[in-house]
Amino acid sequence: MKDISHSTNRKKSGEISRTLPPKSDFSEWYNELLQTASIMDVRYPVKGLYVWNPFGFSIRSKVYSIIRELLDSTGHIEAQFPLLIPEHEFMKEAEHIKGFEDEVYWVTHGGTDMLDVKLALRPTSETAIYPMYKLWVRSHSDLPLLIYQIVNTFRYETKHTRPLIRLREITSFKEAHTVHATWDDAADQVKKATHIYQEFYSRLAVPTIVSKRPDWDKFPGADYTMAVDVLMPDGKTLQVGTAHHLGDNFAQTFEIKYENEEGEQILAQQTCYGVSERCIAALISIHGDNNGLVLPPEVAPTQVVIIPILFGSDKEVLMACNNVKDIIQHSGLRVTIDDSDARPGSKYFKWELKGTPVRIEIGPRDLKNNSVVMVKRTGGKTNIPIDEIVPRINKAFKEIHDNLFETAAQLLHSRIRLCFDLDEVKDHVKTGIARIPWCGEQACGLEMEEIVGSGILGTPEDPELGKGNGTCPVCGKPTDIIVLMARTY
Amino acid sequence: MKDISHSTNRKKSGEISRTLPPKSDFSEWYNELLQTASIMDVRYPVKGLYVWNPFGFSIRSKVYSIIRELLDSTGHIEAQFPLLIPEHEFMKEAEHIKGFEDEVYWVTHGGTDMLDVKLALRPTSETAIYPMYKLWVRSHSDLPLLIYQIVNTFRYETKHTRPLIRLREITSFKEAHTVHATWDDAADQVKKATHIYQEFYSRLAVPTIVSKRPDWDKFPGADYTMAVDVLMPDGKTLQVGTAHHLGDNFAQTFEIKYENEEGEQILAQQTCYGVSERCIAALISIHGDNNGLVLPPEVAPTQVVIIPILFGSDKEVLMACNNVKDIIQHSGLRVTIDDSDARPGSKYFKWELKGTPVRIEIGPRDLKNNSVVMVKRTGGKTNIPIDEIVPRINKAFKEIHDNLFETAAQLLHSRIRLCFDLDEVKDHVKTGIARIPWCGEQACGLEMEEIVGSGILGTPEDPELGKGNGTCPVCGKPTDIIVLMARTY
Repeated sequence: MKDISHSTNRKKSGEISRTLPPKSDFSEWYNELLQTASIMDVRYPVKGLYVWNPFGFSIRSKVYSIIRELLDSTGHIEAQFPLLIPEHEFMKEAEHIKGFEDEVYWVTHGGTDMLDVKLALRPTSETAIYPMYKLWVRSHSDLPLLIYQIVNTFRYETKHTRPLIRLREITSFKEAHTVHATWDDAADQVKKATHIYQEFYSRLAVPTIVSKRPDWDKFPGADYTMAVDVLMPDGKTLQVGTAHHLGDNFAQTFEIKYENEEGEQILAQQTCYGVSERCIAALISIHGDNNGLVLPPEVAPTQVVIIPILFGSDKEVLMACNNVKDIIQHSGLRVTIDDSDARPGSKYFKWELKGTPVRIEIGPRDLKNNSVVMVKRTGGKTNIPIDEIVPRINKAFKEIHDNLFETAAQLLHSRIRLCFDLDEVKDHVKTGIARIPWCGEQACGLEMEEIVGSGILGTPEDPELGKGNGTCPVCGKPTDIIVLMARTY
Repeated sequence: MKDISHSTNRKKSGEISRTLPPKSDFSEWYNELLQTASIMDVRYPVKGLYVWNPFGFSIRSKVYSIIRELLDSTGHIEAQFPLLIPEHEFMKEAEHIKGFEDEVYWVTHGGTDMLDVKLALRPTSETAIYPMYKLWVRSHSDLPLLIYQIVNTFRYETKHTRPLIRLREITSFKEAHTVHATWDDAADQVKKATHIYQEFYSRLAVPTIVSKRPDWDKFPGADYTMAVDVLMPDGKTLQVGTAHHLGDNFAQTFEIKYENEEGEQILAQQTCYGVSERCIAALISIHGDNNGLVLPPEVAPTQVVIIPILFGSDKEVLMACNNVKDIIQHSGLRVTIDDSDARPGSKYFKWELKGTPVRIEIGPRDLKNNSVVMVKRTGGKTNIPIDEIVPRINKAFKEIHDNLFETAAQLLHSRIRLCFDLDEVKDHVKTGIARIPWCGEQACGLEMEEIVGSGILGTPEDPELGKGNGTCPVCGKPTDIIVLMARTY
């Protein structure tokens, strides 16, 4: 069965009539690509809620398999907690409430009855999970406790919403919540978390920057927040992961204690860290081009498409295509033959739009030579002998992945510049990320944000990015703290 | 990391102090097993909402992989639609509203703002999906459209709630929604759906009965409903899957039309079918015993546990255990060594409680013989040579699965009896399912339910179960319709 969810865009089966705006019109290109490539349907009749088309959902499944694999292999276990949080639990942690009260959806009625206790749709699950952790954590031997869940969460966004980026239903929130014996153990876990996320993004061929958010931008209720950002094609950064050291702030509120080896009751130390479907937004935006999606092979729903080139000798060519398909499929790759009635050019167009990493063309001439033509989505066309097809495709996959990562990393680094005054920053953040000295005082930081009209991402974890010194552009104090500033989503 | 979520039940790591009530006290046994075996935690502070413990969630993941595999291999594609349904869409289909209005949760506020449009938490997703199908379905060539999603749904249950069975948040609702050109095509799909579900349950070693629900018990808005039931240990049936022929009832309301080959606009025919985490309730309840869970190997988080039997010669035995573990793991099975400090008896107890299908014991005597002792959770202890270990375990897995299915099927069939009057039915439904002639008139059917105090499941699909004749116990008319009656969850 075909994914027909955007049949309105087709002239007839397999032929797409809509073309994309150029990627330089990023916002237009992004919205149009989501619809045309059948990632998401934006026509659901509530603002900020979108539908995952089957093709988009298939990418999502592959991407989330990677994060599961990385978490499962680093001692995390998956669980699931309820969506609905009773008002009294939600309201327990003062900082946390302040951070979320304006954007929480409330369930007030069941049927026609008014509920005795209002229920919040989780904006994030601290207040759903920690009452259970109070029951689960007893002894130092129970620690560390590393649990995650992948669930839907909700924010009543009043700002402009945007598919995969700013949502009222975050459909795919991966949140981990860990408990530790000491503050330092929790700090180590925060470091591990950002490294897992960087590994995750490198599997998507997406380069990232990790920084410590300034105090005024940390998670409500946290000691500090580390964040993972990517640079989007329009020069803005997108926060695609965060890891928070919660200290014992929530442990105090929710009475999460453990007995140490001396038999004393000690407040636990906690962290939480999350990634949402913004990872898909980054993946699509960073790699896509004027022809559509470009997917790293690991997450492409179809990794190889075979296009028969027919000039009368149809039967033999189709047999050869099926033969090649069997060989490729047998090696465990996801392959399909496009034997629709469309012209080859139209098929190329369609599968390029879908980001298919490798296209194999087989025509009568190839049959004679016992070879096929292989075309990479990232460029490059070669003849390859049929009996080398699987290793050659796998080699191409690696080249595509590395090429995507390298290209994105080069672009990212070319867009980061050390600036020495705020005018320079103001100019540079139009296209990238500015590095700038800062004295470290909150008052100066807030004034820098005010003057530039952009945010401070924080102090970078990468020592290369943090290296430098100068004077604070507001108070003029000499400093060796370098912060990153950018326009942000 | 260990799943410590019920550490309160342990004396020390690995030793469980709590014992189960006998399975003959089914309700007690069920509640206690969920908690003791770390399937679900029932202590979440809202009625009808429960927490999936990591161990339980791991079973869930394996079970849902099977349903995904079966759907994906029969032409279905996975998508995802929003949780929140605007009131005006939800209220469109009159029958449907009547069926759900008393049990829908309503979101009325975002932050402190009253929402302009109230939002329903989906109790099921017809009214979220069909406005999109209106946009997606254009031509006969788009059909059939077979889409499913696995999501959380909500019911404001006022009755007694029970984990996995009667929930306010159904965390794992697999719902498929299909569109067809003709009524007959849709009827075929309903048949396919119940067969997929029967196949799914047979993979869980759970025998099922399919029947056509009486008209007064069909899905609100459907032409008819087919249901899949299982027999629980207390003699009640549990509905574990349904498939509904929706005719063009929803297509009329949501204007889902396609253009046929003659260029005419035709109302589409639809079906929907669903399965929830009740499948896990059935799995646990039907196979479990006085010692705890009994899991079919395919869905067991740990399939093989190795217990070292130590008498001083620890090092060699532990080396042998690791060696055997590597061999088993290499073959793709899920295996662990329990090398905790607990006594072997206590370890047996623990892993039996968790339903681990195969236990391998290795002691000094086994080392000498180059063999191990294999014990099946369903009974049977044998010595097996180490070099045959993988095929012997796989053989044991098949035996366990077949044995579970056969035992359950025998019990089910021994509990189905043809009855000829309602007193006999009333007596028989205490322990099983009654077959009874019925004239087919709704008035008589409702009176039968009233007199017996139990429900009519409907007319069975299996011709063996439907065979027979007699007179309607209410009106006395001769009939060859046989219906099933049972106490139901």
